[in-house]
Amino acid sequence: MNQDKLPLYEALLAYKNKNPNSFHVPGHKNGLVFPKQAEDLYRSLLSIDVTELTGLDDLHYPSGVIKEAEDLAADLYGSNKCFFLVGGSTVGNLAMIMATCKEGDTVLVQRNCHKSIINGLKLAKVRPIFIQPDFDFVAQLVTGLNESFAIEMVKYYYTAKALILTRPNYYGYTTKIDEIISIAHQFNMVVLVDEAHGAHFGHRSELLPKSAIHSGADIVVQSAHKTLPAMTMCSYLHFNSQLVDIKKVKYYLQVFQSSSPSYPLMASLDLSRYYLAMLTNAQLQRTLLLIEQFQAALNEIPQLMVIRNNQYVIDPLKITVQSMCDLSGFQLQKLLEEENIFTELADANNVLFVMPLTITIDLLVVVEKIKQKLKDFKIKNKIVKIDKKFFRKETGLEISYEERESLEIEVVSLEQSVGKVTAEEIIPYPPGIPLLLDGEKIETAHLEQLYRLKSLGAYFQGTDVFQNGLKVYKN
Amino acid sequence: MNQDKLPLYEALLAYKNKNPNSFHVPGHKNGLVFPKQAEDLYRSLLSIDVTELTGLDDLHYPSGVIKEAEDLAADLYGSNKCFFLVGGSTVGNLAMIMATCKEGDTVLVQRNCHKSIINGLKLAKVRPIFIQPDFDFVAQLVTGLNESFAIEMVKYYYTAKALILTRPNYYGYTTKIDEIISIAHQFNMVVLVDEAHGAHFGHRSELLPKSAIHSGADIVVQSAHKTLPAMTMCSYLHFNSQLVDIKKVKYYLQVFQSSSPSYPLMASLDLSRYYLAMLTNAQLQRTLLLIEQFQAALNEIPQLMVIRNNQYVIDPLKITVQSMCDLSGFQLQKLLEEENIFTELADANNVLFVMPLTITIDLLVVVEKIKQKLKDFKIKNKIVKIDKKFFRKETGLEISYEERESLEIEVVSLEQSVGKVTAEEIIPYPPGIPLLLDGEKIETAHLEQLYRLKSLGAYFQGTDVFQNGLKVYKN
Repeated sequence: MNQDKLPLYEALLAYKNKNPNSFHVPGHKNGLVFPKQAEDLYRSLLSIDVTELTGLDDLHYPSGVIKEAEDLAADLYGSNKCFFLVGGSTVGNLAMIMATCKEGDTVLVQRNCHKSIINGLKLAKVRPIFIQPDFDFVAQLVTGLNESFAIEMVKYYYTAKALILTRPNYYGYTTKIDEIISIAHQFNMVVLVDEAHGAHFGHRSELLPKSAIHSGADIVVQSAHKTLPAMTMCSYLHFNSQLVDIKKVKYYLQVFQSSSPSYPLMASLDLSRYYLAMLTNAQLQRTLLLIEQFQAALNEIPQLMVIRNNQYVIDPLKITVQSMCDLSGFQLQKLLEEENIFTELADANNVLFVMPLTITIDLLVVVEKIKQKLKDFKIKNKIVKIDKKFFRKETGLEISYEERESLEIEVVSLEQSVGKVTAEEIIPYPPGIPLLLDGEKIETAHLEQLYRLKSLGAYFQGTDVFQNGLKVYKN
Repeated sequence: MNQDKLPLYEALLAYKNKNPNSFHVPGHKNGLVFPKQAEDLYRSLLSIDVTELTGLDDLHYPSGVIKEAEDLAADLYGSNKCFFLVGGSTVGNLAMIMATCKEGDTVLVQRNCHKSIINGLKLAKVRPIFIQPDFDFVAQLVTGLNESFAIEMVKYYYTAKALILTRPNYYGYTTKIDEIISIAHQFNMVVLVDEAHGAHFGHRSELLPKSAIHSGADIVVQSAHKTLPAMTMCSYLHFNSQLVDIKKVKYYLQVFQSSSPSYPLMASLDLSRYYLAMLTNAQLQRTLLLIEQFQAALNEIPQLMVIRNNQYVIDPLKITVQSMCDLSGFQLQKLLEEENIFTELADANNVLFVMPLTITIDLLVVVEKIKQKLKDFKIKNKIVKIDKKFFRKETGLEISYEERESLEIEVVSLEQSVGKVTAEEIIPYPPGIPLLLDGEKIETAHLEQLYRLKSLGAYFQGTDVFQNGLKVYKN
C-alpha cells in the first residue's frame, strides 16, 4: 500500500476547512466556547475535536477513513488487522486477555508485567502461573524471560490457554521469543505480547529490534505515544491470530473504550503511522549515530556510567545511565530537572532517557549541562546491588481471583504476616520483579528478601509496609 | 472554595514555560517531533501533552494539582468527591457498576440506558430487571422513568442491590427522581445515575435543571465534553455514597483507565469546571434568551416544528426539531449539513440541536439558511408515529450473563426465532427503547411489534434483521 496518505487526518482537515457551524457535542463548539486564558494552547486542536459526523467514520464500527487509516497501519507493521486504541495499551491489554481467556483458564504470565496485565487477569478470573524473568546484574535491572526456561514452562503447562509476554521491558531490553512462540503454538497456546514500549519496532529497516508481530505472536499491543509521535493514550492493537476470535476482541474494545472516542487522538495515530512509514533509513541512521555520540559523551562524565549489555538486544532509543557518585538514581533525576532536563524514570541506581526518532536539539549542550551540574560530586560506586542469583521459578496463587472477592482484608505487621495470603503487591526496585503478588502466600523467605532489599536501599512503591504493615486476607 | 483558580492547567503552563528538554514519553517531545503538515493544528497543545513529571501529580493517586482540581469540581457540584475521567462516561459507568455489584446481584435498570451500562451489567454478571420508561407521544421520544411506577418497582424488588437511572435522556428530558432515590435508600438500595448529558446542571443558579447529585444519588457520572467545554472523552464521576466503598471505585477507575492519562484532556476538565463556575447568571440568562429566540424563529419555518412538552423539565440546551414536511429526520440532517450546519443526531422524525453555554455565532443567520434550504419542501405531516400506549412493565433475562458465556450462537430467520433467546439487541427508533436485549426470550408479540414499527418507517441500528436474520443462543 502507498503509505504516503493520511486518510483520517485529512478528512478532519476537510471538515475544519468548511468553517462549520456546530450544533453537536462537544460543548466547546470547535473551540469557540472556551476559557480565554487557554485559547492559545487549545483552540487550533479543538477545531478537529468533533464527534462522529458524516464522513468521519466510527471507531467502533469502522468502514471509512478510520478503517483506511487502520489498514495502512496493519500494512506497515505486517499484521492482519490493526485496531486504533484511545484508552492506551491498558485497554488493549485488558481486551486481549478477556477475548482470549475464560474464567478458570490457566495462563502463563511473565512476572514483571504491567499492572494492566494483572488487572486483566483478575477481571477474567483466570488462574495465572507467574514465570520469573532474568536479571542483568550489571545494570541491576530485570530483563525478560529466559528462552530455555520459558520453553520448559510452556511444555510443562502445555494445557495453558495463553502465554503473556512483556517485551521490550521499560529499559528497552528485548529477549528471544521466536522459538517460545513456535512451541506454544504447537500446543494451541495463544501468545499475547504487551509491546507497549516497542511501537517503533515497526520501522521497515532492520535498524531497530524486531517486533513480536514478526515472531508470530497472536496479539501485540503497542503504545504509539511512547516512542512514536502520537498523543498520550494512543495505542495500536495488532491481531494476527488463528486461535482467538476477532469478534471477541472487537467486543471488548468497545466495552472498555469510550463511545465518544477523541478525534485528535485517533488522528494522531494516523499521523504517527505516517511518521514512522516516511522515516527513511538515512534519517533513522542519523538519529542512531547522534544517540551513540550522546551515550559516549555521557559516559565520559566521571559521575555517570552508561549501561551496555551485549547479551541483549537493547532498543537504541533507551539509554540507562547509572550513577557512579554519591547520588541515588532518584537524586540524579531531581538534579537534572533543575537544569530543565526531564528524564523518563529513576530507580535506586539509574536514570532512564527516552530518545526520539528524530533529534531536534543539540545533545552535546545537554551533556555539557549535566557535566557541569555533577562535577563536584564525589565518585563513589555505592550502588544498590542485588548479589544473589534469582532462581528461575514459577508460582501460582494461593487464593484464586474468584475466591478473593468474598474475603475480608485486614492489615497485619510483617512479622504476623507469615503463612497468610497477601492482598496487595510488593514490588521492590531493584529488581522491579514483584516479590509478592495479590493472592500469594507469604513465606519467611519473602520477609528475609524484603528486609535484605530494604537494607540494600531498594525502593518500594505505595505504602510503607515496614511501618504500616501489610494487607492480607482474613483467615 | 475560591473557584477562580486553575491548579492543573497552571501547573502545565508553568512546566511548558520552562522550555524543558524532554527525555521522556511521549515520543513527540513536546511537539518537536511531528509530521510537518499537522504542526499548525497540534503543536501548541502538544507542549503540555506530557507524562507524570515532578509537580504534575498522578491521576490514579492524586495528591497535588490534580487533587486540587478535583476538589474544586466537587465543591462546585456539591459532591463529596469528584474523580476526573479521561475514558469518557463509559469508564465511569463501568466502574460504578463494578464497584457496587457482585456477581448474581439483582439490579433494577432503566431500559433505555446507554450501552456502557449494559456492558457493565454483563461484566459484573448481575441479574438485571429492566424497567420500561415513559414515552412522549408528541415528540415520539422515550423520556425517563415514571415516578410512581419506579417507586412501585423499588418496593417490589426491595432486595435489589442497585437502581440504575439515566437522566436526562439524549433529548434533554428530565424526570422526577428525589422521591425514588429516597425510597430506594430506605431499602439500602444504591442509586447510580448516568447523567452524561447533564454536566452543566452543576451551574450554581437555578436556571438549569437540577443534577441528580442534589437529589441524593450515590454516584453520578457526567460527560464534561458534551455540554461543557472539555475535550471529548472527559467526564466527572461524583461520589456521595454511604453504601458504596469508595476504594472499590478508585480500584476500578485505575483498572479501566489508561495508566498514561492525557494531560491536555485532564487539564480541560479543570478548564471546563472553571468555565461553568465563572459563568454568571446574567451571561447564562443571555444564552437562554438567545436560545428561546432561536427556537421561536425555527418554529416559524413552516417545514419544521420545535418540540415542547410542559409535562417535563427539558434541558434548554437541547432543541428537538420535528420535520413537518416530506423529509425524514435523517434527510433533514443531511440537507442541513450541505449548509455547514452540523446537528447532533437524527431519528425518523426529528433532528437534535445541542446548544452551547455561550452563543458565539449569529443564530438568526442560521435560521435564515435553514428557511431558504427548506422553502420548497411540501408541508405534509407524515411522521413515523407510534400510536399504541406502551405498558409499564419490567423484564428479566431468560439466560443469565454467566450462562451465556458458554453458549454457542446461531443466526435464524425472524420467523424461526420465536421461543428462542436473542444474542443481540434490537433497538427501533422511535421509540428508542430496546425491543429486545441480549438474553431475552423472543415472543410472537415482539415480532408483531417489530413488523409494525418497520411498516411505520422506524429505523433499526446495526444489521438488518429482516433480511439477515437474528442472532440467537443455540438451545
